[in-house]
Amino acid sequence: MDALSIIRKKRDGRRLDAAEIAAFVDAYTRGAIPDYQASALAMAIFFQGLDAAETADLTNAILHSGKVMDFSDVPLAKVDKHSTGGVGDKTSLIVAPVAAAGGLAVPMISGRGLGHTGGTLDKLESIPGFRTRLTLDEFHEAVRHTGAGLIGQTDELAPADRKLYALRDVTGTVESIPLISASIMSKKLAEGIDALVLDVKVGSGAFMKTRERARELARRMVEIGTACGKRVEALLTTMDQPLGCAVGNALEVIEILEALKGRGPADLMEVSRELTARMFVLGGVDADLDSARARFDQAIASGAALRKFAEIIRWQGGDAGVIDDYARLPLAEHEEAIAAWDDGYVAALEAEAIGLAAVRLGAGRARLDSVIDPGVGMVFEKKAGDQVETGERICAIYFNDRSHLDEVRAALRAAIRISPEPVPAASLILESIPG
Amino acid sequence: MDALSIIRKKRDGRRLDAAEIAAFVDAYTRGAIPDYQASALAMAIFFQGLDAAETADLTNAILHSGKVMDFSDVPLAKVDKHSTGGVGDKTSLIVAPVAAAGGLAVPMISGRGLGHTGGTLDKLESIPGFRTRLTLDEFHEAVRHTGAGLIGQTDELAPADRKLYALRDVTGTVESIPLISASIMSKKLAEGIDALVLDVKVGSGAFMKTRERARELARRMVEIGTACGKRVEALLTTMDQPLGCAVGNALEVIEILEALKGRGPADLMEVSRELTARMFVLGGVDADLDSARARFDQAIASGAALRKFAEIIRWQGGDAGVIDDYARLPLAEHEEAIAAWDDGYVAALEAEAIGLAAVRLGAGRARLDSVIDPGVGMVFEKKAGDQVETGERICAIYFNDRSHLDEVRAALRAAIRISPEPVPAASLILESIPG
Repeated sequence: MDALSIIRKKRDGRRLDAAEIAAFVDAYTRGAIPDYQASALAMAIFFQGLDAAETADLTNAILHSGKVMDFSDVPLAKVDKHSTGGVGDKTSLIVAPVAAAGGLAVPMISGRGLGHTGGTLDKLESIPGFRTRLTLDEFHEAVRHTGAGLIGQTDELAPADRKLYALRDVTGTVESIPLISASIMSKKLAEGIDALVLDVKVGSGAFMKTRERARELARRMVEIGTACGKRVEALLTTMDQPLGCAVGNALEVIEILEALKGRGPADLMEVSRELTARMFVLGGVDADLDSARARFDQAIASGAALRKFAEIIRWQGGDAGVIDDYARLPLAEHEEAIAAWDDGYVAALEAEAIGLAAVRLGAGRARLDSVIDPGVGMVFEKKAGDQVETGERICAIYFNDRSHLDEVRAALRAAIRISPEPVPAASLILESIPG
Repeated sequence: MDALSIIRKKRDGRRLDAAEIAAFVDAYTRGAIPDYQASALAMAIFFQGLDAAETADLTNAILHSGKVMDFSDVPLAKVDKHSTGGVGDKTSLIVAPVAAAGGLAVPMISGRGLGHTGGTLDKLESIPGFRTRLTLDEFHEAVRHTGAGLIGQTDELAPADRKLYALRDVTGTVESIPLISASIMSKKLAEGIDALVLDVKVGSGAFMKTRERARELARRMVEIGTACGKRVEALLTTMDQPLGCAVGNALEVIEILEALKGRGPADLMEVSRELTARMFVLGGVDADLDSARARFDQAIASGAALRKFAEIIRWQGGDAGVIDDYARLPLAEHEEAIAAWDDGYVAALEAEAIGLAAVRLGAGRARLDSVIDPGVGMVFEKKAGDQVETGERICAIYFNDRSHLDEVRAALRAAIRISPEPVPAASLILESIPG
C-alpha cells in the first residue's frame, strides 16, 4: 500500500477502490501512515469528494477498525435515531424511552455538546448519578434489560473515527459531506442496529445551512446504511430557532420530563413523534406511520414512556427521583427575564446566536475540554410567530455567575427579532429521504 | 496566529495576507505548527492556488527563514541561471564558466538528479576531488576569486524550503505552480543575486508537459523576482529529447568540455548561448542580445571559458587535468551500441524514458538516497530529425554492470522512434517571458 499514490489518485479526481481505502484507514489507525499524509488525503477528499461506493467503503473501513456490537440475543428490532445537532434539540431523550416503551431496543451512543449545539450526554449527566460511561458489556446489559442504553463514544467502537475526527478538526477538513457521512454512519453501524432514523437539521442553527447541503448529507448517509443492509430513513427538519423552549442541560431535562408527561412544547413533540414513528415502522413494530404515531401518543398518554425513562435512569445509576422532584436537578440560582421592547410578533430566535450565548453562560463548550455548568441556560416563553406586547417576557436567563451576563443579555437581545407584521410559521418537517 | 483559520481561509478560496503567510512559515519552520497542518494547507493551495502577491509573500517568508548571501564586496553583477530540469541538460556547466569569463559573478546553488532528470551536482562530483559541499564562507570566496561558485543546497539558506519540500514530496503537493515557484525563487534569491535567467523546460521530458503550464510557471517566477527587485527573464525551451548527446555524469562532463572547446552539439550550444546572452544583458555587461551572443562565442573561441572552468575546478578542489585527459574521469568499462532497425529518420528520442533508462543503468536516482555510478550512461550519435540507415549506430550504452542491461536496452529501443518520413526539426527556444 502506497499512501502517496492514494493521495495523488484522489487529488487528481480518480476513484479509490475498497482495498485502497481499507489499507489506508487500517495503516493510519495503526500509526503506520503519519498524520500529515492523512490530512493531505482528507483535504483532497474535501475538494474532489467521494462517490457512493467510496463513501460506503470508507464507512466500512472505519467501522471495522474496532468492535461491532452484537445484540442478537435481544429479541427486538434494534433501532437508533441520530441527529446532526441543533440548539435545544432534546428529542433523543424523548424518542429513546418512547421507542423502548413501544417495543424497540435502542442502543444509543451520543456525543457531547460542542460549539453552539448541545449534546445528549451533557443533558443526561445533569441527572445526579447518571453514568454515561458504561463498558460495552454494561451497555449490552442496559439494552437487554431496559430496552435502551444511553452512552458516550468509546475507544472500542470505530476507533479510526476518533483519530480521523481529531485530525480533521485541526486541519480544516470537517466540512466534507462524504467524510461527515462516513464518520456518523460508522459509529451508528458499530451499535449493532437493524435500522436507523436520521434527523438532518437544516437552517441557521444547523451545521447544514441550506436544504441542498442537508439533502446531500441525508442522501449520502441513507445510501451508506442501505449499502450495509440496514433500513434507514432521514428526515430533514428545521433548525432556525431552538427546538422546544429550554436551552441548557438541566433545564432541558425538565422539558423532557414535561414532554413525557404530555406537556411538551408543540414543536418538540411533533419532531419527536415523527422521528419515533419512523423508528417503529423501520423496526417492524408498525405497518404504517399513522399507527406508529398513535403508538407514540399512547406511550406518552399511558405514562409508559415516563416509567421507561425512570427505569433507564435507575439502570444507569441515576436518581429517578428527579422525575417528580425537579429540585433534585442542579438548577441555577438566579433568573433574569428578557422582555419585549416593542409590540409585534417574534420574527426570529436565531438558533446559532442563542447556542453561542448558552456557551458563554456556561451551558456548552467552546472546546472539548471546557467544563460546563449543568444548571444554567434559558427558557423561551415565546417562540417565532408568537404575538408579544411591550414588556411581556420572551425569555428567562438562568445563571450562577454574573461575569458574562451583560454579553449574554446583549447577544440574546440581538438574536431575538420582533416584527410589526405577523410571521408565518415555518414547516418543522421539511422532507423525508427514504432508504 | 491561528493555523486552522489560515487553512480554512485558503481552503475557502480567500487570499492570505503577508502577515499570515509569514507567521505560518515561521511557526512551521520552528516546529510550532505540526506537519499535518502544513500538509493540509499545501493541499488547499494545490486546489485554490495563490495569487501573485501571496506567492511573493510566501517566497519572502521562505527566503527569510535562513541566511541570505551578501556579495556586495564583489564588484560585478551577480547573475545566476536556473533550469527546471531535463535529460542531458548540462547547460549550467557551460553557462557558468562562460558568464564568469565574460565579466559576471555566478553564485550557483544546484540540485542533484532525481527521477528521470539529471543534476548539476552529480556531474560536478564525477570530476575527481571536486567539492560541492562548501561552507557559505568558502562559497563566498569561490565567487570572489574565480567569478563562480558551484555548490549544493545547504541548511543555512532557505531552511523552510527544505522542510516544506520534504513534506510536499510525501503528501502529493509537489505539483502546484505557486508552491514550485516559491520554492525555486526563495533558494535563488538566497544566493544574493542581482539578476536571474530561468530555463523553463517544456515537453515530454520536462516536469511541465505543456507550454501553458510552463508559461504559467515562468510568469509566476518572473513576477516573484520582479516583486523582489531583481531583473529576471525566463526562456521556455524544448525538452522532448535529451539536450546534447550525452546522458550520464562523466559522459556529460566530457560533452561540456568539448562544448567549451567549441565542439559541442548544436542544440546544446544554442540553448547555452541564449541563456548566457540573457545573463550578460540582465547583468548589464551587454546592451543587447547580439553583442551578448558574440561575447558568448568569443569566450568559447578564445579558450577563456575553458580556462575559467579549469580555474573553478581547481578552486573547488577538483582535478583540472580532466580537461586534457578525459581518462581521469570515472568512465564505464563496457560499451554496447543500439543500431537502427530500419531505414528512415529519427522521429523521437523520448527524453523521460531515456532518463529513466539512465536511472536503471545507475546514472541517476530513483530515490534521494540512491547511490549513483558516475561512469555509466549513453551517448546519442543521432538526434531527432537525423536520417539513419539500417544497422547504423543511434546510441552507445556505457555500463559497468550487466544486471539491468536487458531492460535498459529494451527501454532505449522503445524510446527511439524511426519514421519513414522526414521529421521537421522542433524549435529549441520557444518563447521569452521578460520581467
